Amino acid sequence: MPAIEENYDVVVVGAGHAGCEAALACARLGLETIIFTVSVDSIAMMPCNPNIGGSSKGHLVREIDALGGQMGINIDKTFIQSKMLNKSKGPAVHSLRAQADKVNYSMEMRKTLQNTEHLTIRQAEVAEIITVPANSADGETAAVEKKDGQMVEINGELQKITGVKTVSGGVYHCKAIVLCTGTYLRARCLTGEMITYTGPNGLMAANHLTDSLKAHGIEMFRFKTGTPARVDKRSLDFSKMQEQKGDERVVPFSFTTNPEDVQIDQVSCWLTYTNPKTHEIIRANLDRSPIYAGIIEGTGPRYCPSIEDKVVKFADKDRHQIFIEPEGINTNEMYVGGMSSSLPEDVQHEMYRTLPGMEHVKIVRNAYAIEYDCINPDQLYASLEFKKIKGLFSGGQFNGSSGYEEAACQGLIAGINAAMSILEKEPLVLDRSEAYIGVLIDDLVTKENHEPYRMMTSRAEYRLLLRQDNADLRLTKKGYEIGLISKERYDWVCKKEELIAQEIERVAKVKIGANKKVQELLESYDSIPLNTGTFLTELIRRPELDYDKLAPIDPERPDLPAEVAEQVNISIKYDGYIKRQMKQVESFKKLEKKKIPENFNYDDVPSLRIEARQKLKTYSPTSIGQASRISGVSPADVSVLLVYMEQMKYHEKESAE
Amino acid sequence: MPAIEENYDVVVVGAGHAGCEAALACARLGLETIIFTVSVDSIAMMPCNPNIGGSSKGHLVREIDALGGQMGINIDKTFIQSKMLNKSKGPAVHSLRAQADKVNYSMEMRKTLQNTEHLTIRQAEVAEIITVPANSADGETAAVEKKDGQMVEINGELQKITGVKTVSGGVYHCKAIVLCTGTYLRARCLTGEMITYTGPNGLMAANHLTDSLKAHGIEMFRFKTGTPARVDKRSLDFSKMQEQKGDERVVPFSFTTNPEDVQIDQVSCWLTYTNPKTHEIIRANLDRSPIYAGIIEGTGPRYCPSIEDKVVKFADKDRHQIFIEPEGINTNEMYVGGMSSSLPEDVQHEMYRTLPGMEHVKIVRNAYAIEYDCINPDQLYASLEFKKIKGLFSGGQFNGSSGYEEAACQGLIAGINAAMSILEKEPLVLDRSEAYIGVLIDDLVTKENHEPYRMMTSRAEYRLLLRQDNADLRLTKKGYEIGLISKERYDWVCKKEELIAQEIERVAKVKIGANKKVQELLESYDSIPLNTGTFLTELIRRPELDYDKLAPIDPERPDLPAEVAEQVNISIKYDGYIKRQMKQVESFKKLEKKKIPENFNYDDVPSLRIEARQKLKTYSPTSIGQASRISGVSPADVSVLLVYMEQMKYHEKESAE
Repeated sequence: MPAIEENYDVVVVGAGHAGCEAALACARLGLETIIFTVSVDSIAMMPCNPNIGGSSKGHLVREIDALGGQMGINIDKTFIQSKMLNKSKGPAVHSLRAQADKVNYSMEMRKTLQNTEHLTIRQAEVAEIITVPANSADGETAAVEKKDGQMVEINGELQKITGVKTVSGGVYHCKAIVLCTGTYLRARCLTGEMITYTGPNGLMAANHLTDSLKAHGIEMFRFKTGTPARVDKRSLDFSKMQEQKGDERVVPFSFTTNPEDVQIDQVSCWLTYTNPKTHEIIRANLDRSPIYAGIIEGTGPRYCPSIEDKVVKFADKDRHQIFIEPEGINTNEMYVGGMSSSLPEDVQHEMYRTLPGMEHVKIVRNAYAIEYDCINPDQLYASLEFKKIKGLFSGGQFNGSSGYEEAACQGLIAGINAAMSILEKEPLVLDRSEAYIGVLIDDLVTKENHEPYRMMTSRAEYRLLLRQDNADLRLTKKGYEIGLISKERYDWVCKKEELIAQEIERVAKVKIGANKKVQELLESYDSIPLNTGTFLTELIRRPELDYDKLAPIDPERPDLPAEVAEQVNISIKYDGYIKRQMKQVESFKKLEKKKIPENFNYDDVPSLRIEARQKLKTYSPTSIGQASRISGVSPADVSVLLVYMEQMKYHEKESAE
Repeated sequence: MPAIEENYDVVVVGAGHAGCEAALACARLGLETIIFTVSVDSIAMMPCNPNIGGSSKGHLVREIDALGGQMGINIDKTFIQSKMLNKSKGPAVHSLRAQADKVNYSMEMRKTLQNTEHLTIRQAEVAEIITVPANSADGETAAVEKKDGQMVEINGELQKITGVKTVSGGVYHCKAIVLCTGTYLRARCLTGEMITYTGPNGLMAANHLTDSLKAHGIEMFRFKTGTPARVDKRSLDFSKMQEQKGDERVVPFSFTTNPEDVQIDQVSCWLTYTNPKTHEIIRANLDRSPIYAGIIEGTGPRYCPSIEDKVVKFADKDRHQIFIEPEGINTNEMYVGGMSSSLPEDVQHEMYRTLPGMEHVKIVRNAYAIEYDCINPDQLYASLEFKKIKGLFSGGQFNGSSGYEEAACQGLIAGINAAMSILEKEPLVLDRSEAYIGVLIDDLVTKENHEPYRMMTSRAEYRLLLRQDNADLRLTKKGYEIGLISKERYDWVCKKEELIAQEIERVAKVKIGANKKVQELLESYDSIPLNTGTFLTELIRRPELDYDKLAPIDPERPDLPAEVAEQVNISIKYDGYIKRQMKQVESFKKLEKKKIPENFNYDDVPSLRIEARQKLKTYSPTSIGQASRISGVSPADVSVLLVYMEQMKYHEKESAE
């Protein structure tokens, strides 16, 4: 049977938040890229919450933006409310979150993809990946073949990617694949006893690819996630809820967005609460939950639990916050944030109606759980390339994560590294001290993940350095070096760094006398008056004061952009903490720099504990640092490894001499 | 197992073009209405061509509008190009067609539904209709029950609707149902050898309802339709195609739209052609078409054939017109109008590339055929109510039609009549002399339909009266009486009628002398000069002249709205034809008025031919007129019927005296 045959550099499978970033990155780097989706109408669809960002996720979006990704730009164009969270706390946990107009978000991203050079969009289901033995010459037999309708791995060696095949038999030759299948692989949706064999929103599941991946030696997991009901705005009584407004002055996500362009008319969200009656209904019907009844095999996200999980796990809490969020400006549908569920629809109707303001709620779409195939990410390098298959990369929920932002940043890195592998450049691997993205990927590929992984500020040990406000300073250079950031944009970040440094230096020298003007200013902020003269730096460090507030007593201050002033302020205020954390980073980096060779044989290391040996073989860490974070590898094991590697080096040097 | 139970007046199944009109009509008439859809995101989706209107379909949209439907208003808000077709021909075939922005069209309709009082939207799949014997008291057992997992009809009597059940077990009690399932019932999509068990655009099919309908004694058909590929605009060379621009002055569809609001910046469509090479590729691959290979069971639309059908059926033609139409303003996808196909994708790639300007075309979505369950509409009254099940109505592709406009107008009538049945009012039945809608429904319920039915001007025998320009004059009164048209709007139409009549009367009396001004005006239009004085009416009738052109020699002319002037002109110009057609309508009406009683026993009529007797029993026509149009019923049979009915009346009178 004849079939389409086409040639590309990169094939991206899936056009959700990961797939879009992956495809854009590759195409923008000049590689001929094709992105497959089961429905072009579902590009960058938001099947769950109607927002982008939030605690730690906002950091990810800023980092994506600094590396040249699209998510920040896209939400800046389509948000309908925006808020900087945790503003009463320290700058490390400030997090930007914006409510999206779902339809516009999706349309805008689709438009961007459709107008990107070197990028082809194709509505088709990818059924197989095609590989050959990694060391084979061109034209050699596939490493995995179909025999009697079944996939058979014809050898167990390292493979490399040569293409994909679609369900209709089309063959797309390529040098790299990025798998971003989200929740679509063998998906099924569950609402109580009702099971529907579709992906989200009634879209067809992708039922073919799993078998091909398994045949290629990839170990599959099965995870589940869930979403709450969507309800009719007209059936809600907002007078019984608390209004949640956006910020008066909106801050954009993207460092390229003009802040004036995001000062729009915003819509409100609403806060209500569950109560003992809600919990009683849930408890009384737990036996009808497909999870508690054992129908669901997949593991759900611990940090984004269903309402039934919350009621069971936090039995002592008599209420939970529920956020009612608009799904867009042109729709009456509202998202019931915090109340995802897979309970039967009659229970849903009852339980939602117990909430203040929701007494007469009309459900438009039921809450449901969705179960899907994904992988154990221990099969990946930190570059997001499969250890066993050269040229095969993956990102997003396929890698066992949860959340749009987590997906997008992995898609971006996987896409960049697919491109880097083709361009024969070093992969982009961010470490835990450089970015939340680094933390996220290191966690995925190093730690054991038994449930959908969610980003959290507490996961980042160097979070005082990894702020959302300095993502550009941390990462623009890398984006520029990769080729996704323009020279102009990079030059501005260099200039900004210079301006910050100069101003910090200047401020350190500014002396403030205990004069009347100064005392009056201090008094106006309830700050203790000066006994004697001091340095401006000291005053900035006072909790009730900051760099901006002290402008009136700093007549020599140059006229600096707000973003520069912000960095000056934070750097001075948190100088001690930052310096301490930078020291920790130094020792962390030392271990990260101790590379473990690719084909290192752990069996050669004497006195390594069996558990450690097994774990190290499974994860094949690329550095001593990564090895030290694998659970089951103790500090003693790390010392054994270090000693062994020193000896190795010594022997190598000796034999070289 | 407990389940949701809710009460409504009307349940609408499906939210396509038929379902939306049905639901809006019922809700606007004050009935509590719920509309079910498998995906709220797909409300008013346009899965095929990106336009509304066109030859005869434009008439339907105008008629929908005059009756208080939504389609005209919706396209006026979301069109991106508009054209009055056939302007060089007579006014009977002038037809308005507008290119839609698909996403906006869908969003705008969704917004309208979501903001309509008494209307509830629910994302769920309806699995069963629930009936009781028609004469049963409240609470009586269902007429059809589930036994051993199979539906069993427990008696063959007339049934009446009491509700629907969803797949999740929810029961929605109601007094009437409107089925508008489109192409979703047991849908499967075919592209060559590839079969996908989904509805359009990868959306889940509805696989449950057919069994329930069959169990209720409904006879099901299987039809198929198809759609062409969507291609990437960037891969086309428009310099090799002919540009198709919109009209300079756009005319809105809706009589309520301010014409100034539709003067927008329009986009272009493009015309190209197939050629012998295209046809050769198609012929060489016919064996791989699922239709020619016998894989497709359903019957396709004769008047909207696939390109392979065209090549086979019109073997002597060496080219076919192909229109390249944008799918929206925010997308690069273009619709390849005239080239629907179910050939394998490799053949599609080859054949599309033979077209001038498409040499390097990139297909985004393949063309495909879709097969679905529908009914034989002979089971319906002209009210679109099922003969065997009181309160069960249906519209759109479910009734065996094809096209958005055909669907919408049936949905509107079915919705209106569902409401009328609940409100215990007479159903709205438009006859063939009143509206294209009347022709369409009469054709569906009277003639044998073996393929998806499409509206065409040639089907309307009184088409000189059924113009798109006078839909308001023909139907606004009916819309007002039903309750869907405001008093204000109706008053204006009455006023308009009066103004037209007055002006026609005045013009008939205006004498024109053979003076210099008159001769000069005539000369300027290449019209023969006058020998002697004449009436203005005579001049208007000259083909090269019209009412507007003669304004300069008609000083007493009142200042009339353009829509009034248009009617005056057409009425005068085509006076003879119109009068002749009105006479035909009179005799037509005579037969339509001869009603056949509901339980008329054709076995009692002696000397009726067996074929005619059978057909009459099948269709149960409501009038002699309808009986006369049933194929297999000859004029002689009609005479026999007429004589018999006269005798019946005579006997009744006698026994009454």
